[in-house]
Amino acid sequence: MLQGFSVPLSPEGKSSLTNLPPWHYSSDCMAIEYWADKQALAELLPPGVILDPSSDGRAFFWFLDWQFTGSNDEITDPARYQYREAFVMVEATFDGTPVNYCPYIFVDNDAAMARGWSQGYPKKLGTVFQTRTFAAPSAAAAPLAPGSRFGGSLSVHGERMATARVQLTDKIEDPRTVFNRPTVMRRYFPQLAKAGQSRPPVDELTLSLTDDLAIVDLWGGSAELTIPEVFGEEMHRIAPVRVGRGFRFGMSYSVTDLKILKDYTA
Amino acid sequence: MLQGFSVPLSPEGKSSLTNLPPWHYSSDCMAIEYWADKQALAELLPPGVILDPSSDGRAFFWFLDWQFTGSNDEITDPARYQYREAFVMVEATFDGTPVNYCPYIFVDNDAAMARGWSQGYPKKLGTVFQTRTFAAPSAAAAPLAPGSRFGGSLSVHGERMATARVQLTDKIEDPRTVFNRPTVMRRYFPQLAKAGQSRPPVDELTLSLTDDLAIVDLWGGSAELTIPEVFGEEMHRIAPVRVGRGFRFGMSYSVTDLKILKDYTA
Amino acid sequence: MLQGFSVPLSPEGKSSLTNLPPWHYSSDCMAIEYWADKQALAELLPPGVILDPSSDGRAFFWFLDWQFTGSNDEITDPARYQYREAFVMVEATFDGTPVNYCPYIFVDNDAAMARGWSQGYPKKLGTVFQTRTFAAPSAAAAPLAPGSRFGGSLSVHGERMATARVQLTDKIEDPRTVFNRPTVMRRYFPQLAKAGQSRPPVDELTLSLTDDLAIVDLWGGSAELTIPEVFGEEMHRIAPVRVGRGFRFGMSYSVTDLKILKDYTA
Amino acid sequence: MLQGFSVPLSPEGKSSLTNLPPWHYSSDCMAIEYWADKQALAELLPPGVILDPSSDGRAFFWFLDWQFTGSNDEITDPARYQYREAFVMVEATFDGTPVNYCPYIFVDNDAAMARGWSQGYPKKLGTVFQTRTFAAPSAAAAPLAPGSRFGGSLSVHGERMATARVQLTDKIEDPRTVFNRPTVMRRYFPQLAKAGQSRPPVDELTLSLTDDLAIVDLWGGSAELTIPEVFGEEMHRIAPVRVGRGFRFGMSYSVTDLKILKDYTA
Repeated sequence: MLQGFSVPLSPEGKSSLTNLPPWHYSSDCMAIEYWADKQALAELLPPGVILDPSSDGRAFFWFLDWQFTGSNDEITDPARYQYREAFVMVEATFDGTPVNYCPYIFVDNDAAMARGWSQGYPKKLGTVFQTRTFAAPSAAAAPLAPGSRFGGSLSVHGERMATARVQLTDKIEDPRTVFNRPTVMRRYFPQLAKAGQSRPPVDELTLSLTDDLAIVDLWGGSAELTIPEVFGEEMHRIAPVRVGRGFRFGMSYSVTDLKILKDYTA
Repeated sequence: MLQGFSVPLSPEGKSSLTNLPPWHYSSDCMAIEYWADKQALAELLPPGVILDPSSDGRAFFWFLDWQFTGSNDEITDPARYQYREAFVMVEATFDGTPVNYCPYIFVDNDAAMARGWSQGYPKKLGTVFQTRTFAAPSAAAAPLAPGSRFGGSLSVHGERMATARVQLTDKIEDPRTVFNRPTVMRRYFPQLAKAGQSRPPVDELTLSLTDDLAIVDLWGGSAELTIPEVFGEEMHRIAPVRVGRGFRFGMSYSVTDLKILKDYTA
Repeated sequence: MLQGFSVPLSPEGKSSLTNLPPWHYSSDCMAIEYWADKQALAELLPPGVILDPSSDGRAFFWFLDWQFTGSNDEITDPARYQYREAFVMVEATFDGTPVNYCPYIFVDNDAAMARGWSQGYPKKLGTVFQTRTFAAPSAAAAPLAPGSRFGGSLSVHGERMATARVQLTDKIEDPRTVFNRPTVMRRYFPQLAKAGQSRPPVDELTLSLTDDLAIVDLWGGSAELTIPEVFGEEMHRIAPVRVGRGFRFGMSYSVTDLKILKDYTA
Repeated sequence: MLQGFSVPLSPEGKSSLTNLPPWHYSSDCMAIEYWADKQALAELLPPGVILDPSSDGRAFFWFLDWQFTGSNDEITDPARYQYREAFVMVEATFDGTPVNYCPYIFVDNDAAMARGWSQGYPKKLGTVFQTRTFAAPSAAAAPLAPGSRFGGSLSVHGERMATARVQLTDKIEDPRTVFNRPTVMRRYFPQLAKAGQSRPPVDELTLSLTDDLAIVDLWGGSAELTIPEVFGEEMHRIAPVRVGRGFRFGMSYSVTDLKILKDYTA
C-alpha cells in the first residue's frame, strides 16, 4: 500500500514531498503595508471575492523565514525543512467578510511548494532574504529596537522582483490592530488532456485554517518597497503607488485542515 | 479574465508557471540499464499496472539536460526554461501492453515541476549534472566516440541520491532496439480539507503523448550506477542489484495532449 | 584611481568582493566537541603548529548563521551579506600558546570567501543549514530550553559532508569555560607561473584579531556528529572517533586587522 | 607533507580547490561585440595598459558553458567541474601590443574561482545561462543554422547584471578574423594586516598562456545586449552605447603556465 500526502507516493511514505498534517510552523516576518492600483488588484481576484471597498487598494508585501516540523523530527533536518517565502496579501471581502487574498507567492523549497499548492497558495520558486535579529550585540545584529534597519528581497530566476527596507520606531502591543483578517486562496489544478484543458478538475476558493496562531514581538516603523517590472512576470501591475508602515514580528501556527468556501468546477 | 495553464493565474497569463501547450523539448540524455529487487519495484506500481514478467526487474535511470520552448520565445530565456532532470523508468505492463512507469523524478526548475505534475510525473526538486559533449577538441570535450567517459549525478537537498558513469563503446543505429515503450504515470493531487484527506480529487493513470519523438546519436557502452540510502527518501529500495549497459543520446518531442487511462477516484 | 580591498578593483570600489575593514559580524552558532585520530589531525598543521598534547585530539565542528555589515549599509542587503558557514577547529599550540587551527571551512557566499582568504581561512563553497530558534511558540520554534533539539548539515557540490544533532540540557553561565582559544590560520596564495608553482608568494601563519568579541546565550547538551567519506574530499580523515558535548550560542565580533605570526616564504 | 595547488592544503591534495596544472577546458560560447564609454573603460585598466586607440571603445561580453578536467578524471564528476561563466573583454594595448583586458568576470563554481584568482581573473560568483544547441531536432533545439536565436543572462545575488540575444546569420570560416588578441589580467591578493592594507603582496600584470587553443563552429549574427545598473555593482559604467555583432562558437585550450608581464609591488 503506497503512502504519502503528496507525490511521490512510496511504500513507507518517506519520499512524499509532504506527509499528512499536522504541520507546525514558526517564522520571522517582515511586512510592508502599501497601496496599489485598484483595478490591477481587482483583476487578480477569483469569482465572488471583491476588493474591500474600505481598504482603498491596500495590500501587504511579506517576507518570511520559516521553520517547519511535522511528526517525523523534521525540525532537526533544516536542509529540507527550513525555508524562505515572500507573498502579497490583498485586502478583499468574501460574502461580506473582510479577508486577505494571496495572488502571488514565492518559496525556496519544494515541500513548502507542495503543501502550498494543496492549500491554494499559487507558489513558484524564488530566492528570499530578510535581515535577521541576532542576540550577540554588533553593528550587524539588527536588534528589535528603535532605529534598527531591516532589508528584504525577492528574486526569481535571477531577477529582482521586490526590494524592501524597514526602520523600526515602536513596539506594537496588540498585533490584532494590524493583522486580523483570515486568508482565502484559489486551489487550482489543471487538466492536460486536450478535451479538458479549459476545465480544471480542481478550482476552489479555500480558507486557511490556522490552529494556535500567535504573533509576537511586533514592531512598526517606516518602510520602502519597490516591485519592478520583470520580463515574464506580472507582479509589477500591483506595485506600490504609495507605501505605508513596515512591520517586523514572529508568527507561528499549525495546519491540520482546510475549509473549502466555493467549488468553481460545479 | 485570468489567464494561465497553471497557477498563478494572472490577467495576461505571463505569471503562470506554464502556459497551455504546445510544449517543445530537446535534450541530451544519459541512461543506465539496471535490474532491481522485483518486490521493491512492484510495490511502487499503481493499481492495474504490473511488473513486466519478461523484464526480470529491469529499470533505467536517466539523466537529462533539457531545453524547453513554448510559443513565447522561451528558448531565448534559458535562465527560466533550460533545466536538468533525473528519473527512474520501471518496465511494467498495463492491459497487457509493455510500458515504462515513472515512480521517482527530480528536476531543478519550477516550470518543469508544474508541467510534470499536470502530466503525472511526481517531480521533486533535485540538482542534476551530466558530462556534456563539446565540439572543441580537448581532454575535457567528451566526444561521441569509443572510449569517451561520462558521469551523472543527482542530489536532493545536499545529499547524493544517484551517481553514474558510462564509457562509450559503439554507436547504435536503431534507437528502437533500446527505447520503445510508452510511459505511464500516476496523476495525483491531494485534498487537505480534513474529511477528504484520504480521497484525492485527482488520481488517474495517464499515458504520455509525445509528438514528433526523435532519438538521435545513440551510443552504448559500459556503465556504473549507485543509488545510496538517504535519510528521508526511499529510492534506494530500488537500487541496482545488477547494472547493464549505459547509453548516451539526444531526444526531442512535443507535448500537446495527455491520455487518461484510468480514473482511480471513480 | 581604482578602489577596493579585493578583486575586482573598480573606480568607486563598489564592485570589490569586499571593502576595507572594519567588518562587523553577528551569528547564531552550533558547535560539537569531538575527538579525532591524532595522527590525522597532526598532518593538517602548518610548520611550527603542533597538536595540543593536553587535548588528546580534541576538535570542534561549527555551524554558523552569519550576518555581516561593513560601512555601506550592508545589513539591509541580506541577499549579498547574510551567509552560512561550517568549519573545524583543531586544538593545537604555537610557541607554547594554546590555539585553535582551522584546516577546513565552507561558506555559501563569495564576499565571505574573499574576506576569509585574506585572513587565512581556506574557504570553499558549501551549503550549510542549522535549526534556528524562533520567538513565536510552536513545535517548530526550537527555543533555548532544556530538551530542545537542533540539527546542522554541510553539503558540498551535492554531497553531505557533515551532519550533527544537539539536544540542549543546561545554560552555561561563563562561555570562557568552553571557548577560550585564539584562532590561527595559514594565509596562502599560489603562483601559477611555472617556475614558481612550488613557491607560493603568500604563505604565512596568521592570528585572527577579533574586536569586541561576545559570546551570549550559551547552552550545552548532548550531541551527534558524522563526517562521512566523500569522493574528492579528505575531511573524513578527521571524522569523530568520539563525540562530546554540543553547544548552541550567539557570537559577535569586529575585524580591523590581522597579526602575521610567521612568514613561511622567508 | 601537505599537498594542493590552492587552499585548503591536505595530506593527499584531494581537498584543494584546484590541483597543479595541466588544466584542460572545452566550452560553448556566445560573445557580443559592443562599444562603451571610452573614459569608463580606461578607468578600469591597470598601469601600463591603455585603451586601444584603434578600437574606439570596443569590448566583448562573453557567456561560456565550460567543462573542465585535470588529471584525476574530473570530466566524470560534472557536479564539481562543469560550470558557467560570463565576462567582459576590453580592447587595449600593452607595450604597443593589442590585447584584451578582463575587468569583470563571474562564475558559478569555486574551483573555477580559485584557478581564476591564481591567473588574475577577478572572479565573483554569478548565475549564468545561455541557450544551447541540441542535436535532436525541435523548436527547442537551437541548431547552428541561419535564423537560430540564442539568449544569455548573468545574475549576481538575484539581480540581473546582463541580458543578451543573438540571431545567427552566417558561418565564419576563419575565427582569427574575430578573435585574435591575447588576454592580460591583474593578479591581485590583498594584505589584511593593518600596516599593509594599502600594499597588496601580489599585484601583477599577467598574460594568459593557452596551449592548443581551438575555436570551432563560429557563427555570426545580429545581437542585443543590456547591462543595467545594479545596487552595489559598477559594471553598468561600461554598458553598451552601441551593439555590434553576436557570435556563437566552441572553444578549447589547456593551461600549464602563466606569464608575469609586470610586478606592480616592486
